[in-house]
Amino acid sequence: MNISIIGTGMTRFGELWKVSLLDLAHEAMDQALENSELLPKDIDALFVGNMLSGILNNQANLGSLLAEHIGTGIPAFYMEGACASGGIALHNAIQSVLSGQNKTVMVVGVEKMTDHSGDDITAGLMGAGSEAERQAGATFPGIYAFMARAYMEQYGVTEEDLAAISVKNHFHGSFNKKAQFRFTITINDVMKSSKIADPLKLLDCSPITDGAAAIIITSKKVSSKKRISITASEVASDTVGLSGRSTFTSLSAVVKAAKKAYHKAKITPKDIQIAEVHDCFSIAEAIAHEDLGFSSPGQATKDIIEGKRTIGTGNLIVNPSGGLKACGHPVGATGIKQIVELTEQLRGDAGPRQVNNAKIGLAHNVGGSGTIAVIHILQNNL
Amino acid sequence: MNISIIGTGMTRFGELWKVSLLDLAHEAMDQALENSELLPKDIDALFVGNMLSGILNNQANLGSLLAEHIGTGIPAFYMEGACASGGIALHNAIQSVLSGQNKTVMVVGVEKMTDHSGDDITAGLMGAGSEAERQAGATFPGIYAFMARAYMEQYGVTEEDLAAISVKNHFHGSFNKKAQFRFTITINDVMKSSKIADPLKLLDCSPITDGAAAIIITSKKVSSKKRISITASEVASDTVGLSGRSTFTSLSAVVKAAKKAYHKAKITPKDIQIAEVHDCFSIAEAIAHEDLGFSSPGQATKDIIEGKRTIGTGNLIVNPSGGLKACGHPVGATGIKQIVELTEQLRGDAGPRQVNNAKIGLAHNVGGSGTIAVIHILQNNL
Repeated sequence: MNISIIGTGMTRFGELWKVSLLDLAHEAMDQALENSELLPKDIDALFVGNMLSGILNNQANLGSLLAEHIGTGIPAFYMEGACASGGIALHNAIQSVLSGQNKTVMVVGVEKMTDHSGDDITAGLMGAGSEAERQAGATFPGIYAFMARAYMEQYGVTEEDLAAISVKNHFHGSFNKKAQFRFTITINDVMKSSKIADPLKLLDCSPITDGAAAIIITSKKVSSKKRISITASEVASDTVGLSGRSTFTSLSAVVKAAKKAYHKAKITPKDIQIAEVHDCFSIAEAIAHEDLGFSSPGQATKDIIEGKRTIGTGNLIVNPSGGLKACGHPVGATGIKQIVELTEQLRGDAGPRQVNNAKIGLAHNVGGSGTIAVIHILQNNL
Repeated sequence: MNISIIGTGMTRFGELWKVSLLDLAHEAMDQALENSELLPKDIDALFVGNMLSGILNNQANLGSLLAEHIGTGIPAFYMEGACASGGIALHNAIQSVLSGQNKTVMVVGVEKMTDHSGDDITAGLMGAGSEAERQAGATFPGIYAFMARAYMEQYGVTEEDLAAISVKNHFHGSFNKKAQFRFTITINDVMKSSKIADPLKLLDCSPITDGAAAIIITSKKVSSKKRISITASEVASDTVGLSGRSTFTSLSAVVKAAKKAYHKAKITPKDIQIAEVHDCFSIAEAIAHEDLGFSSPGQATKDIIEGKRTIGTGNLIVNPSGGLKACGHPVGATGIKQIVELTEQLRGDAGPRQVNNAKIGLAHNVGGSGTIAVIHILQNNL
């Protein structure tokens, strides 16, 4: 693929009560234009990733609404795939560039969650659950708790082992000025935090977050040292409900999409120095490491505890941004935020959280309980 | 472009109280597979166009949910652009095939509207209006009434003239077994019908409808006589609110997208024998004829009254399906239904509503009050 990322933008993530969904998106879009040194007229199309604007705000046609900010009447598209909405928007943006229809396009992921009651947000997010799960009163912490229990039983992994994932991600987030949580935590803090859905506790769970992220990609030849290549973009789906799956300890959509992505990028997991994975819950990151081939089955938490995934001590750093856990999880924005983080890392612009010698990075964006998975592989070819 | 339509499916349109959104989509998907003589394993990806499943039903991730019906874990995407959601899904499906990422993909448009109160549907649809329009209590009939008033004043067109559009479309719909309304109407019927938003009356307005439509497109060489080529797919956007526009009597998004589409397909409006246009209101069809170059400015209703757009008497037949007015307007399905109708016509399979010698057709799908426009051009190359 001949696709370069040439601009990135990202708002601070957090409980941002004073700004609207449009404010957030516009800030990220403006930053991406500035970062790419492009003007609005240089953008051929806009792709928007967002999950909840319809469900929570009765807002449709967010593609055109955000394109107004660019002001040139370009094609504009809203795309949704639950918490993988950002990744899906990027995947389709890439196809539009590869097809020759567009040369330079912007992709923005945005979510405004905190203006709503917890009940409304929980119900809204369950829009990505199966009908049976909704009727049973399930919530996503509950659904991931099933996976955690199955994983712990299958591999003899403990709650303390899973807690190490949140500890690592908060450590990384402490270096990230845009993260929702910039404090470090201990295994003991995780263990003492409130039970949400046994065995998951508050500090196993990603938060409710407002935020936006944007990138600009192009097929044009670019000489800038800021250019980062996208070498694979692959998607796969699975049943919406957990009950349709043959295992709870691996997500087939991730395995399928990752296999295709490695093949397309002509790499193996060993070639990767850095990854942003979809740690909506601690258990989700453990399973991700294994489905992506970073760790052997059942070994993810052991590798994390040994420091192999941590900045400063590791060889394959996972979630240097702080991940969904510490950086925050504005659901439609997350998939694009992952790309912003990898781009900054691969450019060598990540400041205090810079991963040394990062040349190849992977982004893993998941919707629902593994219903849809989007894998992107980025490379610094310079 | 080397893209062929090789399968079509469509449910009956109407108030279909006994079937769900999933039932509707599945029926159209199954029909498209059967019509193409393909198996689920032959489909590389699924693109879903829908506007209201989140707003009305709290349903997210409809892409993956519908992909479960195919059952092979393929990439699946939900795309929304108000009443142009179907066209937008097709546009992006085409890019994915042109990019080489996929060879054969299914596009389904679906909407289930009648399970909700009129107030909820009106509020949901206003999700595609501007914030100022919503705050002012505007509705889409009201917004299009502004356009109608401006058009009538600018060109000296009367309410009776506009009524001829609904009369034509009901005449066409009377031949369509899948249409919501299969009865003919007269100018007098339109004039006597209840005022909705002056000068628009009930019979100037498209109805609330349930329905689904699906097509299968491919880049593979196909020898089947059922193959129809897509020769252009173009999109443009405009301000969400009417107040941002320099005119109410032309939609710049349509003019831009049509200009690009004619250029891409290497045709002029004179080469077209058949078109499905977005007649959400009678005035919308009048403006469409002019923005698309079928009639001179202000002349659309005159041409319609003279029979130039009617099956049997016309040279460029518009809305042979009955259009949104008579066939019905399940908003996310409409853009795909237009393609199904054109495909059947260009194949010569349209039965009692067959347009003679139809070789080139155009589909015009619009979101909001002209906020986004999608133009597709289809051709029978055999």
